[in-house]
Amino acid sequence: MKKNIITISREFGSGGHSIAQTVAEKLGVPYYDKALVEQVAKESGFDPEYIENQGEYTSSFPFFRLSGDSVPGAMNGMNADDYLWCIQRQTILNLAEKGPCIIVGRCADFILKERTDALHVFICADKAYRKERIVERYGETAQKPEQRLHQKDKQRRAYYRYYTDREWGAPQNYGLCLNSSVIGEESCVAIIAGLTK
Amino acid sequence: MKKNIITISREFGSGGHSIAQTVAEKLGVPYYDKALVEQVAKESGFDPEYIENQGEYTSSFPFFRLSGDSVPGAMNGMNADDYLWCIQRQTILNLAEKGPCIIVGRCADFILKERTDALHVFICADKAYRKERIVERYGETAQKPEQRLHQKDKQRRAYYRYYTDREWGAPQNYGLCLNSSVIGEESCVAIIAGLTK
Repeated sequence: MKKNIITISREFGSGGHSIAQTVAEKLGVPYYDKALVEQVAKESGFDPEYIENQGEYTSSFPFFRLSGDSVPGAMNGMNADDYLWCIQRQTILNLAEKGPCIIVGRCADFILKERTDALHVFICADKAYRKERIVERYGETAQKPEQRLHQKDKQRRAYYRYYTDREWGAPQNYGLCLNSSVIGEESCVAIIAGLTK
Repeated sequence: MKKNIITISREFGSGGHSIAQTVAEKLGVPYYDKALVEQVAKESGFDPEYIENQGEYTSSFPFFRLSGDSVPGAMNGMNADDYLWCIQRQTILNLAEKGPCIIVGRCADFILKERTDALHVFICADKAYRKERIVERYGETAQKPEQRLHQKDKQRRAYYRYYTDREWGAPQNYGLCLNSSVIGEESCVAIIAGLTK
C-alpha cells in the first residue's frame, strides 16, 4: 500500500518541523501544523495560542483561555484538555480523509494508526545539536537551552502517554525514526520522500 | 564523514540479520555475526555456543562452560560474563579498525559510539510479523512464539542496559531505527546502503 499520509513527530530542536515542510514541498502535498491549529481553533472556539500550547503538551497550570463566545457550553462535561483532544483528533482524521498530506505532532501517528496508507516518522537529534539549533532559531531566553529541551520533551512525552497509552519515540510505534544530527536533514527528507513512491 | 562501519541491532524475528547480510553483499564488505563469535571463541577460550548465548543475553543460570584448557586462569578476577564482555568489546574495536564492515548485535553501537565513520541502525518490527517469521525460520518449539519473542527481547534489553547504561532501541542511540514490517526489508536495505555513499 502506497504511503501517502505522513505524520512527523519530533523532539524539540531536532529540525522535524523544517524536514516536514521540505518533504511537503518536494511531494507537492499540504502540510499541516499552523493550519491544523487554525482549523481546531475554528471548530473548538479555543484561542490558537492555547491550542499551540495545550494541543501537544501537558499543562503546567490548571488554567485555560477561550477566544470569545464560540464555545457553546457544550464540552459534554469534559475538561478543556480532553475537549481539545477530541476536536483535534477529529480534525486530524478529517484531514487524512481529504488525501495525501503531512501532519506534524499532535499524536497524529496514534490517531491514524489504523490507516495502512500512513507512514509515521519520529525525528530526534543529539542534545548538543538541538541546544545550538533552538538558540539559533528562537533566540536566548532566561531558561538555559538544556532546560528548555528537557521541559518541552517532558511535556510532549507526558501528553502522548496520557492520550495514547504508548511511549513517545518508541521505534515500534513508527515506520522509522531518524536522527537528524547523525544523518543530516537532507538525508531525512530524501528517505521520507523516497518511501512515498 | 562517510559512514563505512555499520552496526545493526535488532529485535528477535525482525529480519535484522538478513537485512545486515544483504547490505554487506550489496556493499561488498565483510559481515560479522558468526565470524565474530568464532574470533571471540579463539581469543577467550569460551565455547562458541556459550558466546552465542551469553554474548548478548543476560544469563538464565549462573553457569558457564569453557572449551578445553585455553583460558589460562587469567580472567583477572572477573566473572565469566564480564570477561566475555571485555574480549568481545576488544574484538569489535579491532574489527572496526580493519576497515568497512557490518557488525550485528553485541552492543557494537555502544562500543563504537566514538567513531564518526560508524552508522548505528536498530531494526524492529510488529509482533505479528515477528511471530510468523520466527516460526517460519526456526520452527515451532514448546514455547509459544509470543513468549519466545518476549524472552529474547527482554534478555537482550537487560544485557544492553547492564553493559552500556543506555536504553536498548531508544532512537537517540542510533542514526536510524527502521520498522521492517512497515517499510519492508528491501527498503531497509536500500536506506542503509544509501547512507554509506
